[in-house]
Amino acid sequence: MSVTVSTLPNGLRVATDTMKTVETVSLGMWVGVGTRHEREAENGVSHLLEHMAFKGTERRTAGDIAREIEAVGGFLNAYTAREVTAYYAKVLKDDAALAVDILADILTGSVFDAEELERERTVILQEIGQAQDFPEDVAFDLFQETAFPAQAMGRSILGRPEVVRSLPREAVAGWMSERYRAPAMVLAAAGHIEHETLRGLAERHFAGLPDTPAPVPEAARYAGGEARENRDIEQTHLVLGFEGPSFIEAGFYPAQVFSTLYGGGMSSRLFQEVREKRGLVYAIYSFASSAADTGLVGVYAGTAQESAEEVLAIVRGELEDLAGSGPDEDELARARAQLRASLLMARESTSSRCEQLAQQLLVHNRPIPPEELTERVEAVSAAEVMDIAARYAGARPSLVVLGP
Amino acid sequence: MSVTVSTLPNGLRVATDTMKTVETVSLGMWVGVGTRHEREAENGVSHLLEHMAFKGTERRTAGDIAREIEAVGGFLNAYTAREVTAYYAKVLKDDAALAVDILADILTGSVFDAEELERERTVILQEIGQAQDFPEDVAFDLFQETAFPAQAMGRSILGRPEVVRSLPREAVAGWMSERYRAPAMVLAAAGHIEHETLRGLAERHFAGLPDTPAPVPEAARYAGGEARENRDIEQTHLVLGFEGPSFIEAGFYPAQVFSTLYGGGMSSRLFQEVREKRGLVYAIYSFASSAADTGLVGVYAGTAQESAEEVLAIVRGELEDLAGSGPDEDELARARAQLRASLLMARESTSSRCEQLAQQLLVHNRPIPPEELTERVEAVSAAEVMDIAARYAGARPSLVVLGP
Repeated sequence: MSVTVSTLPNGLRVATDTMKTVETVSLGMWVGVGTRHEREAENGVSHLLEHMAFKGTERRTAGDIAREIEAVGGFLNAYTAREVTAYYAKVLKDDAALAVDILADILTGSVFDAEELERERTVILQEIGQAQDFPEDVAFDLFQETAFPAQAMGRSILGRPEVVRSLPREAVAGWMSERYRAPAMVLAAAGHIEHETLRGLAERHFAGLPDTPAPVPEAARYAGGEARENRDIEQTHLVLGFEGPSFIEAGFYPAQVFSTLYGGGMSSRLFQEVREKRGLVYAIYSFASSAADTGLVGVYAGTAQESAEEVLAIVRGELEDLAGSGPDEDELARARAQLRASLLMARESTSSRCEQLAQQLLVHNRPIPPEELTERVEAVSAAEVMDIAARYAGARPSLVVLGP
Repeated sequence: MSVTVSTLPNGLRVATDTMKTVETVSLGMWVGVGTRHEREAENGVSHLLEHMAFKGTERRTAGDIAREIEAVGGFLNAYTAREVTAYYAKVLKDDAALAVDILADILTGSVFDAEELERERTVILQEIGQAQDFPEDVAFDLFQETAFPAQAMGRSILGRPEVVRSLPREAVAGWMSERYRAPAMVLAAAGHIEHETLRGLAERHFAGLPDTPAPVPEAARYAGGEARENRDIEQTHLVLGFEGPSFIEAGFYPAQVFSTLYGGGMSSRLFQEVREKRGLVYAIYSFASSAADTGLVGVYAGTAQESAEEVLAIVRGELEDLAGSGPDEDELARARAQLRASLLMARESTSSRCEQLAQQLLVHNRPIPPEELTERVEAVSAAEVMDIAARYAGARPSLVVLGP
C-alpha cells in the first residue's frame, strides 16, 4: 500500500498516498470543524473564516497569495461543510513545498484585516444570493433544516445573512485560533510526493498548532417533518428522505448499496420507473450521506407541478416493493459492481485520493485500504438492503416541496 | 507519444492514447454533428436523437443498455453541443469490448420506438424546465442568441419546446442515418487499451457506417447586440463579450492567454478588481470558446442589481487598461504557467485525454502533441494580448442582463 501516516507531537496527522506515475500533487489541510460546531448566533462563521483565510497574512497580501500559487500554475481552494473545513491545493510535483508554505501561512499567520472583512461580507452575501437562485440547493438546505430543526446540524453552511453582515472580527479570528487544533486536523497529500518530504514540511510549519483535543459538537437530533415553499419557477423540486447511518455504524455500507440500486444510476429502480418508463423527470437520484453520529438517506427529483404526486407515489411504491421482496440477485450484484468500480476510478485522481485519505483519518482514525472498502461492499446482503427498505417504508419521510 | 490514429476504409478515425499505469478505459464516439447543423424548424433534433439513442436497439431494450453497462460498474453517457454529439463510456480495462459493443449497438441498431419517443419528449421538456430554473444557463443561451441572431449557431442546444413536442419520429431517426457519417466521426479511447484492440472492435462494428463526406453547416455570422430579461431572482446575471477566434485561427492561443489573465483565476484582473478589491460578486470569470469558424470571448458575473453598472464599468476599464499598457511580464508568465499546468493536470484523467484526442481529430485532423500545445502557449507575446484587448476595447460588446 502506498499510504503512510505519522503523527506530530501535537497530534497533527500527516498522511501521504505516494503515486510515482503522476507529475502532480494534491495536498491540503482538513480541519474537523464546521457548521455544526456553530451556535445559532454565529451561524456562518466557519464559512466566513474559510473566506478570510485567503485575505492576507503577516507575510502575504490576498493578492500575493493568489499570484504566488498561480505563478507556478497551481490551484488553491477551500470548502466548508458541516463537520469539516478544508484548504487544499493542486500543483506540479516540484511545487509541493510552496503549496504547503502558503497553506501554513493562511492557517497560522492570517491577519483578518478589518477592511478585507467588510468586503468579504458582501462577497458571501452574493454567494448566498447565487445559491438562492439555484432551486436544488435551496431544496436541500430546507431538507437539512427539516430533518434537524433548531440545531446546528440543520443550519445552512453559508450562514444567516444577518450573521454574515455583523459577526465581529474577533469572532472570526477566534474561530481559527480556538478551534483549529492539531488533533482535529489532517495534512494529507496524494501524488508525486514522499512521506518524509511532507512530514518535514509539517514539522517546520505546523509544530506550533495547539495540542488540545478537538471540539465536540452537540449530538444531532433527527426530527423530520415537512416543508413547502412557494416559488415562481418552472419545476417542482422534491427532496424526500429518512435518517440514515453515521459513518461508523454497521449500516453505512448497506445504505450505500441500497441507495445505488434504489436510485443511483441509469439502471436503478427510480431512474427506470420515473424517468424511463414514465418520462416524468429529467433528474432523479438517491443519496446516502453520513456524518459522525447520523446520516440522511433520500431522493431528489425535479418534475412538473402536476406530476409531483405521481413521482412521490412511485418513490414510495418502489420502497415498499424493496421492503416486501428485497432486491433481486442481478440488481444487488450490479449495485456492488458500480460501487466497486467507482472506488477504483476515484483512485486515478490525486485529488480524490487525497480527500478520501484525509476524511478516513478524521472519521476512522486510520486509512482504509481499498481492498477493505471493496470487501465491505461485497459483504452487503439482500437481507440488509431489504431491512433498510422495510424500516423506511414503515416510517414517515421528511419531505420538501419547492415550486409553483 | 502514446497516441496512435488509424482510419477505416469508410473514413472513420480510430484513435487511442494508451496509458499502462491505469486500470480503466474511457472511450467514446465523437460525431461532428450538432445544433448548428439544424434548421430552425428542427431545432433540438440533435439533442433529442442523443436521448433516443439510449432507448433501445434491435438487440437491447433501454433497460438492457443501462443494466449491461452498470453490471460491470461502467458509466455510459452522452452530450450534445453546437458542433459535436458525443457518446462515451468509462469502464474497467477488461470491459472495453462490451462498452464498444453497446456504443455500436446504439449508433447503428437503434429502433426509435414510437412510445419511447413520446416519453422522452417529456423528459427533455423537464430538462428545459430545469435549465430555465438556472439563471447562468439562461443568460448564456441568451448571449449565444444575441451574438448569432437568427441562425443555427445562436440557437439553444436543448431546442425549442414546440419542436421537442412535435418532431416526427422519421426526422429523429433520419438525423442519425443521414448525418452520422464515418468521415465526420472519431472513435477514441484513453487508458489501458492497445490501439490494435480498438481498431479490431471498430472494424467489426463500424465498417458499415456511410463513407459520404461530413455535412457542412452554414457559416456563422456574428452580429452582436444587447438583450435584457426581467426575472424575479436574487442576483443580476451579466454576460458581456465579443466575437473571438475559431479553433484554427492564429488568434486561438493568444485568446486563451488573454482570457486567463483578464478573468481566468484568483490572480486575474477581474477577480482581483471586482471581487477582491470591491466585493461586488461571488462569481466572475472570463471565457474564450471556439468553434470551427468563429468564437466568443467574454465575461460572466453575478452581482447585486445596484452593482451591475459598476461591475460593467470595471470590466470595460480593465480591458482599456490592457489595451493601453498591455499585460506586465509577471501576469503574462502567470497566465502561461496556469495554462501549461492545466494541460499537464488534464493528462492525468483518461476521460480528459479521450475527449481532447477526439476533438483534435475532428477540428485539426491530427492529434496535437502536448509539447506543441505548451509551445504555442509559451509563444504568446504581450503584444498579441494587447492587440486583442485593443480590438475589443474599441468594439461595442454583446451584452446580456438577466435579473430583477
